Order: sequence, then structure tokens, then C-alpha cells
Amino acid sequence: MSTTFTTRLTHLQKEKCTALCVGLDPDPERLPGVVAPEDDVLEATRRFSEAIIDATAPMACAFKLNFAFYEALGPGGWDVLRETLDYLPDDVLVIADVKRGDIGNTARFYAASLFDELGVDACTVSPYMGQDTVRPFLEREGTAAFVLARTSNAGANDFQLCTTDGEALYLRVGRYVRDWAADAPGEAGLVVGATKPDAIAQLRAACPALPFLIPGVGAQGGSLKTAMELGTTGDGTVLISSSRSILYASPEEDFAEAAAVEAEAFRDTMRPYLAQS
Amino acid sequence: MSTTFTTRLTHLQKEKCTALCVGLDPDPERLPGVVAPEDDVLEATRRFSEAIIDATAPMACAFKLNFAFYEALGPGGWDVLRETLDYLPDDVLVIADVKRGDIGNTARFYAASLFDELGVDACTVSPYMGQDTVRPFLEREGTAAFVLARTSNAGANDFQLCTTDGEALYLRVGRYVRDWAADAPGEAGLVVGATKPDAIAQLRAACPALPFLIPGVGAQGGSLKTAMELGTTGDGTVLISSSRSILYASPEEDFAEAAAVEAEAFRDTMRPYLAQS
Repeated sequence: MSTTFTTRLTHLQKEKCTALCVGLDPDPERLPGVVAPEDDVLEATRRFSEAIIDATAPMACAFKLNFAFYEALGPGGWDVLRETLDYLPDDVLVIADVKRGDIGNTARFYAASLFDELGVDACTVSPYMGQDTVRPFLEREGTAAFVLARTSNAGANDFQLCTTDGEALYLRVGRYVRDWAADAPGEAGLVVGATKPDAIAQLRAACPALPFLIPGVGAQGGSLKTAMELGTTGDGTVLISSSRSILYASPEEDFAEAAAVEAEAFRDTMRPYLAQS
Repeated sequence: MSTTFTTRLTHLQKEKCTALCVGLDPDPERLPGVVAPEDDVLEATRRFSEAIIDATAPMACAFKLNFAFYEALGPGGWDVLRETLDYLPDDVLVIADVKRGDIGNTARFYAASLFDELGVDACTVSPYMGQDTVRPFLEREGTAAFVLARTSNAGANDFQLCTTDGEALYLRVGRYVRDWAADAPGEAGLVVGATKPDAIAQLRAACPALPFLIPGVGAQGGSLKTAMELGTTGDGTVLISSSRSILYASPEEDFAEAAAVEAEAFRDTMRPYLAQS
């Protein structure tokens, strides 16, 4: 892999006219009954994941697998995760949503597990413990680590607004991560919630070239247009991540068709911003 | 499980006169050649974990499994993790060192995976995303979630010293976690590095009854005596976590005996502090 993550992402985004990243969070409680017998949650999860991939891949430049949902299924869940990774087509990038964050020694093992063993293109990382916990995820050419900066969830303000010399924690995270990535073989990106447009603007100003992974549109209420407008300026690309609003667009037999319609709506809204950039 | 985590921990600590938590971080590069053929890293990891458990369990009140090291071994690594969990004796508590931190929906799945599916007694959690990412780990009686407050690693100062109204982030984390746990069925604890004695004292003053998981003695240079002195005042218990200095006490055939000697030295140093409390 001599091509950078951003190069591959930008190429796919132009080719497919989309910045959509479909988040696979297969919640057993919400799987449509039609996919498999109720008592076989592993098979239901596998078939549901595959049906969603088939339906939405043409409108997506990336898929983000939320490992928690597969891990919670027990040993068989890991097999389903691997089968789902294998099932993904070649024209999407793959992000492991794991939010890892541990000391260097351990971080190196997580990075090996994700990038070398599972072969994903990117992962998510938590910055709380600092530099030596993030850098091991920046060591592989062609890959990227998206570090949590400003998240879209309800509790985001509990700690992310702490300051140093007037600079909010999430901005400090962005600035530090940008600098750590500057001399690394791999790339860094930032996770910035669509529900926090001011943070998108601030972080984009501080980190013009970093890819942003932006959750929080749809179910969480963030504006897709605002996220595209604020996020895609300059060299920086965005990935708009949506999970529940696509996965559970319909609870009935037509769940895959409904997911495709939802993904198409995302692409249609995104298209003008991608053409401009 | 009607007995709280702290009740069980305190009982074990008094019975066995130890606050030692042995950290299982089985690094394939450092496994003694004697445990298994070099080409079978899964079997080597399993046998090494079991030999360390046999050698050190009498001196330990808990074992902390670092999931990264097992995950990095691939699908077979999960089997080894499960076999190792099954192998642990009844008179120790089991901590899953995973440092999870994700939105409520996902956090609930991680909590189910760890507490219900794997049956561990406690886990580690990262606080970066705030309240809704921590609370799902506090929902089960008899269990505890140790939240990262002040870590012992080199990068700890990058973000943990940010402030709100003069209060450092790590103290804010401690105070918030204490309050979130106050009305929860499960317990919260804090991770506080032995290399940061001031933080142990500050956090103990703010959170007198929370159990502290204290890494950073041994290889990282923190003082065991200071950690015991500052950590065990009042109702609060401590778990002194040590991994590398025990696991790799000898690279030769006598690795298990050397681990036992190291664990005994820990217990001997701890004994007076436990008797007092």
C-alpha cells in the first residue's frame, strides 16, 4: 500500500459522488424478522450485514463496523465480523470503530490486530491517555486513525470543554494529533460530531488537511449540509457516517430497499459539495 | 451476585493479605521459549498464562487480562482468552482491561459482552466521551468499572491536565464518576498511576470510597509503598496492578518461579498497609 488513505478516499469519493460512510451497528433487537429465524442471532446478523452492504455500497465510499455489536454475540460474533469484512466490496474503505486507547505496548498490539490481522483501512482511537497511545496507530502507510475530538453524544460536554490557556480540550486534541501525524507513515483523522458545527469549523481551521469522520447526522439531529459545507473546505475530506437512520429505515421485509433509498438521499445531498471540491 | 465488588475485594484482600492485581499482557515476543514450540504462539500464550496464574494466584486478589494481547493473535486468540478466564481460580476477581468508551448504545453492548457473556467482575473504561459512555458499565450489581482518571504513561500530561475553573480534567473525571456511581447498581473505580502520587492523594480526598486500580509500580517506576499509603486511607481500597515486572521476571525456564518470587515481594510490602485498614 503506497497510496495514502486520503488519496484512496478522495478517488472513491469523486468516482462515486459520495462521502457516505455506512455504519454497521447490527443491534439484535432491531434486526428485521425476515432475515433469519429469530433464534439464530448470528446468522441474522450476518445476513442483515450482507443485505445492507449489497443495498448501500453503490452509494458509500466507506463502511464502519462497530465491533461492540459483533463482540457481544460471543465467539461466533468474531466469525460473523470476519465474514462481513470479507464480504465488503473492493470499492469501499473499511473503518474499525473500536475507539481504542491504551499505552504504547498495548496500542501496538491493537494496531497489529486491526491493520495486519483484520486488514482494515482505518480505525477510531480515543485520545485520553495522550501521545504514546495514539502514535502506534499512525505507523502504517495507507491507513488512518480517526481520533475522537468533539463527539456528538449527550455527554460530550462533560470533559471535552476543559481548557488549557483558553483552548478547549477537543481543539488541543486536534492540534496535537495533526502534529503527531506530520512525521508518521500513516495518517490521522478526527472524529467531529455533526451536532457541533462550531467545532467542525474550528477544527477545520486548525487542521486543514486532516480527514474528518463526522457522525451525528440523521438520528442525532446534525445537519448534513452544514457538515459538508464546514468540513470539505481546503484539502480536507469528510466522511459522513450514518448508522441507525440507514440500517433501520424500515423494520419490515423492505429494510434493504429502504436503506438504499436513505443512502441515495444522503448521496444526492452530498453531490454538489463533492463536485465543488 | 448480591455482594458488591468492593465487599468481595476487601474480603479477599484481608483473607490473602494482598492487594496485588496480576496483569496478564502475554507478549509473544517475550514468552519464554520453554512453554511451547516457537511456531505455536496460541499454545505458548495459553500455557504461559496458566503457568503465571498457578504461580502467582496465592499472592493475588485479582487478575487483569489485557484483551489487546489476545485479540492480536487472531480468532484463536479469543479461544485462548476464554480458556484463560475459565482457568482462573475462584479466589481472585477478574478485570477485563479494555478501556472501552463509546456512545450509550454501543457501551451497552460492550458491557453485555464483558459482564454477561464473558462473566468478568470488572473492566476498564475511558471517560473522554462523557456520562452516557460510562453509565452503561455501572448497571450490574457486583461489578465495577474502573474509569481512567490519571494514567501513568508518558503521554498522560497531554490532555489530563486541562482544567475547568481551575480543576484538572483527571479530578473532574473522578468527581463526576463518583457522582454517577452514587445511584447505580454497579460500582465505579478509578485508574490512577503510581507515578502520580499527588493525583492519588487528590483523588482519594475527593473520592474516599471508590476502589483505585493503580498501575505503574515496577517497570514504570512508581513507588508501591507510596501508592499503598496514599490510596488505602478511609473506606477506599486499592488494587496494585503489575504486569511486566511479574510476567517477565525471568526469561528462562524458571519464569514461573521468578514470577512467584516477585509477587511474594509485592505481598510482603503490602501486608502492613492491609493490616492497618
